[in-house]
Amino acid sequence: MLDQKKLIVKKFGGTSVGTLERIENVATRVVRDREKLGQLPVIVVSAMSGETNRLIRLANDLDPGYRGPAYDMLLASGEQVAVALLAIALEKRGVKAAPLLAYQVGIQTDAIFSKARIRSINADKIIQLVEQGVVPVVAGFQGITDDAQITTLGRGGSDTTAVALAAALGGSECEIYTDVPAVFSADPRLVTKARELNRITFEEMMEMASVGSKVLHFRSVEIAAKYNIKIHSRSSFEEREGTWVMSEENMLENPVVSSVTHDPATVVIKLNPVPAGAEFLADLFGRLAEKNIVVDIITQSGSDRPDRQRLHFSIPEEDLVQTEKVLHTVLDSETEVTVMRDMAKISVIGVGMKNHPGVAARFFKVFKEHDVDVHLVTTSDIKISAVVAKNQLKEVAEALHTEFDLDV
Amino acid sequence: MLDQKKLIVKKFGGTSVGTLERIENVATRVVRDREKLGQLPVIVVSAMSGETNRLIRLANDLDPGYRGPAYDMLLASGEQVAVALLAIALEKRGVKAAPLLAYQVGIQTDAIFSKARIRSINADKIIQLVEQGVVPVVAGFQGITDDAQITTLGRGGSDTTAVALAAALGGSECEIYTDVPAVFSADPRLVTKARELNRITFEEMMEMASVGSKVLHFRSVEIAAKYNIKIHSRSSFEEREGTWVMSEENMLENPVVSSVTHDPATVVIKLNPVPAGAEFLADLFGRLAEKNIVVDIITQSGSDRPDRQRLHFSIPEEDLVQTEKVLHTVLDSETEVTVMRDMAKISVIGVGMKNHPGVAARFFKVFKEHDVDVHLVTTSDIKISAVVAKNQLKEVAEALHTEFDLDV
Repeated sequence: MLDQKKLIVKKFGGTSVGTLERIENVATRVVRDREKLGQLPVIVVSAMSGETNRLIRLANDLDPGYRGPAYDMLLASGEQVAVALLAIALEKRGVKAAPLLAYQVGIQTDAIFSKARIRSINADKIIQLVEQGVVPVVAGFQGITDDAQITTLGRGGSDTTAVALAAALGGSECEIYTDVPAVFSADPRLVTKARELNRITFEEMMEMASVGSKVLHFRSVEIAAKYNIKIHSRSSFEEREGTWVMSEENMLENPVVSSVTHDPATVVIKLNPVPAGAEFLADLFGRLAEKNIVVDIITQSGSDRPDRQRLHFSIPEEDLVQTEKVLHTVLDSETEVTVMRDMAKISVIGVGMKNHPGVAARFFKVFKEHDVDVHLVTTSDIKISAVVAKNQLKEVAEALHTEFDLDV
Repeated sequence: MLDQKKLIVKKFGGTSVGTLERIENVATRVVRDREKLGQLPVIVVSAMSGETNRLIRLANDLDPGYRGPAYDMLLASGEQVAVALLAIALEKRGVKAAPLLAYQVGIQTDAIFSKARIRSINADKIIQLVEQGVVPVVAGFQGITDDAQITTLGRGGSDTTAVALAAALGGSECEIYTDVPAVFSADPRLVTKARELNRITFEEMMEMASVGSKVLHFRSVEIAAKYNIKIHSRSSFEEREGTWVMSEENMLENPVVSSVTHDPATVVIKLNPVPAGAEFLADLFGRLAEKNIVVDIITQSGSDRPDRQRLHFSIPEEDLVQTEKVLHTVLDSETEVTVMRDMAKISVIGVGMKNHPGVAARFFKVFKEHDVDVHLVTTSDIKISAVVAKNQLKEVAEALHTEFDLDV
């Protein structure tokens, strides 16, 4: 029987396998941990960095409008190459390795190409290989539909492959190796005094992922939370520990706020007036959803006339052209449209908020002290977000980081 | 029911899909023939030219000694990319296309990695797709073992995929598109007056493939002969017909010799004396076979002593180092080893030889007239080969081409 505690899924991202030299380093590290710590590793790899973008360019050069089975098959080839090369590097070190693609492992997904969701993984084959002393090297990012077509899980999807695999194997831990040493309390490029976090809860990590922090794939954290799998996000270039993402129960105490995150490419759109009532809102946001435009913060308020309302919402900068087209079809000349470019969203996140009132007051105090206008606001149980002018982002981010005791 | 006569397998080689522009051209041509001629095409593609070599380099840089499942998985990714891109190009032209890999079609092979042989193809899925008006685009060169591992068929293996698929579909014809317009009576770079052949028999084509002519994969012709599938080898850059490879019965009459072929990288090894008898020969050639060295022509003759013999044989230039190592383990100091580098093999091929005596006499007359030494000779039913010094190759090739009435 397998010693479940020794079984560990290790995922290596694109930069970790970006060159042959790095692939050799990964192989050396896997073999060493296997021998020294007695680990039974199951490896998940992404495509070599740059490869997925190269493949996307090829597809877009042919037909930027095409998405479907051929697109996913194309992109999945990137992980196939990385899996094969890492398996060769392991074999070279005298370790038996089994390169495995989604169809060979049985990583079943739905048939939503380019953003498929994993439905199930058949762990039998993996367990059998591990029992035989073989190191399975599994392609991340890819899955397979019921009728054997290749799907992909969306950007960062290899994280999700790794965590789902850990869950299917009955594991309790998953290592995610990347090119940053840990999850930070804020983006160090923006906030000078940002520090590494030792621990963070699943909930906080999900909020961070949803506001644009690219450390972990959102869905991977969701699955980790559901199956209570600790994620250890760490550097493939350093030995030391990184950040543990885990359930709140495992943490002795939580800071009120654990991180300040931001999204620098936001556009605010103000419409005044538009018809009152939910029908107009359903129509507008329905049409935007059809174009795959993710509307973020929405605020709605009354107008001078009872049959009219004001509507403000934010969208990613890249979706502005498409959004303006949709607005053109929905609005008449009565509505004044104000497009505010060069905006950014800033958020504070922390599970401690649930038990500490007054976070909102401290949040807005910072804006007031720095004379920064707030254009949109939204809150959840563990997050407060505000949209501000991009040129004031750095100042307010550093001030919030100090206010909530996060500075190094 | 499908109209079997309209069903046609079209294989496009690496140069035919070497750039996005060429992939667009292939798609345009497939769609045009489908509409104008009512064809029901089934497409087979190779990796984009250069891609397989790039992948081989990656594997060799990691570990030149490794061959096995990971190597074949790596190489198979090249065809996957080409299949996906051609499918996108077809969809762009309003034609439904189904990108298919070996495991999706059920191209079953043995488990001899890097030179697997196709055992069976399940044509059901392909036929079903064609009936639905879809153009199947199948990855060449790759197969799958009984336990779902990816195999590859060796250099040029996509030809074999195409012909085997045509056989499985009950077809009678297979188009092989390449970067040369036809099969030639000799390599035009060597023989100035070489001409295109309209027709050639399976047997002749197999002999040509076995003496180093790279037009078609040997195994593809073998399968074509077995299932009587006409191969139409033609250019993907021109419209006109190329060369038909077909059974002898389909041809009204055959020239005595249809082609002069050559292999420019041959080494002759002369051993004198070695122990007489078959035991020594079995040992030596067994050890060479273990190292995957293909010994070509072998001649053996008596020596001054009854317990000794002379042995001459030829090998590909690239295997010389390995061969010398083997000789070192087998021979003692009594044997004199002569290594003749810079040799070339020249052959004349033709099914007509079977009914025309005197071909050998005409063959050797040419060597005598040009004062060219012959170092080794071998013959078959439809072929005579001789090994000569490389610097005399061109002269004798052109003279043989003239002697056997092949000049343009």
